[in-house]
Amino acid sequence: MELYEYERLDDLKRDGLFIIQDTRGFCFGTDAVLLADFASVSKNDTVLDFCTGSGIIPLLIYAKCKTAKISGIEIINDVAAMAKRSVEYNKIGCIDILQGDLKDAAKIFGYEKFDLVTCNPPYEKVGSGAESPKDVKAAARHEIFCTLDDVIKNAFDVLKYGGKLCMVHRANRLTDVFYTMRKYSIEPKRLRLIAPAEGKEPNLFLVEGAKGGGPFMKIMPTLYVYGKDGEYSGEILRIYERGKQEQ
Amino acid sequence: MELYEYERLDDLKRDGLFIIQDTRGFCFGTDAVLLADFASVSKNDTVLDFCTGSGIIPLLIYAKCKTAKISGIEIINDVAAMAKRSVEYNKIGCIDILQGDLKDAAKIFGYEKFDLVTCNPPYEKVGSGAESPKDVKAAARHEIFCTLDDVIKNAFDVLKYGGKLCMVHRANRLTDVFYTMRKYSIEPKRLRLIAPAEGKEPNLFLVEGAKGGGPFMKIMPTLYVYGKDGEYSGEILRIYERGKQEQ
Repeated sequence: MELYEYERLDDLKRDGLFIIQDTRGFCFGTDAVLLADFASVSKNDTVLDFCTGSGIIPLLIYAKCKTAKISGIEIINDVAAMAKRSVEYNKIGCIDILQGDLKDAAKIFGYEKFDLVTCNPPYEKVGSGAESPKDVKAAARHEIFCTLDDVIKNAFDVLKYGGKLCMVHRANRLTDVFYTMRKYSIEPKRLRLIAPAEGKEPNLFLVEGAKGGGPFMKIMPTLYVYGKDGEYSGEILRIYERGKQEQ
Repeated sequence: MELYEYERLDDLKRDGLFIIQDTRGFCFGTDAVLLADFASVSKNDTVLDFCTGSGIIPLLIYAKCKTAKISGIEIINDVAAMAKRSVEYNKIGCIDILQGDLKDAAKIFGYEKFDLVTCNPPYEKVGSGAESPKDVKAAARHEIFCTLDDVIKNAFDVLKYGGKLCMVHRANRLTDVFYTMRKYSIEPKRLRLIAPAEGKEPNLFLVEGAKGGGPFMKIMPTLYVYGKDGEYSGEILRIYERGKQEQ
């Protein structure tokens, strides 16, 4: 496997999986790892990851469930090509990365085809117009190619009835996510706040919505990234080291 | 002060305040105390408490801010009369309890009159029809006299632009509250989950919405009622004992 000089090959420490990342671009963070852990996947599920980027979510979901059929869609050509090379490097047959616009998802994949849609979307609204669409980092952070509304509307189109949408997002956009999910008949059913530590304000959240689900949701215990000793919390270690234990 | 045989006089342990409660009916709980603490009140604010019941929220808000002008509205005649007697017993001039339907709030008080509306509403939807409107406990727990939609719509009518609606509600209705607030242009700005203890699922939440507010909200650290030792947490003790310290 040849890498470009700006790329690096990172060990995911799960089942011997590796990922190619562009050191000039956007590298995955804790949010992607937490989302892949939060999403519940059953064997033979069909899964689609929107804004797949380097393909981190498909790879981590594959590590959890080898029999799921996982697709990832990424709009930026070079990024999609890099994700495909990661899949090839790992010789995984059941992950398929497509270059395309998630707003065409139902045209590409068909309506009501997936049991699960995952998305670690750009968190920030487009503001000053300073964001360049050519800037990969900006596209990962700002809603340049797709808005929250696009993500949820198109998730509705491709999800089977009862299928789940799992997302991670910034705490300050909780109302946006809940409002838009219900608007498109994807009812929030499970919420988990993520805070740096106990007594600190949560800065992220994980949510699972069900297409056509009824009201009433469950809130899980708040997840703390660091413990009182300033070290990673036990639960974060469990999530990160899950792959290791299974090896 | 004469009490009916089914009533008791409880010491609020704040500034020598007492409250009359009907032992056959619905007695206030931690949720009311937490809501009154969560709501931010400035001097000379005008405050209206929907579903005021025994008048617990007006009394606790008075204990926090003696110069606010506080009204409470309660639909059940006997309950409203009992709340009035509590206010008289405490010789408080700036609390006014009215018997009436919150769906007439704007007719009674006028449009855009309040800086703050508080509400500890009935948590449960009306289900089987088994709930009797004559049952005071059922009315406190089930949406017999008013729905969540009624509470938020009528709060919008009586709030000044920029005025706040503070509510406490069941965790499983978080989407209902957020969706309905935004629907009526009361934007959720501040959320706090309440859980029995760390690692347990939050069962209640406090929310503050601002009439005409823009998107983006803040999530506060999760509030735990009990500490690891099974005793009340430090923060709960602070909230409960705040009045004592000020005496």
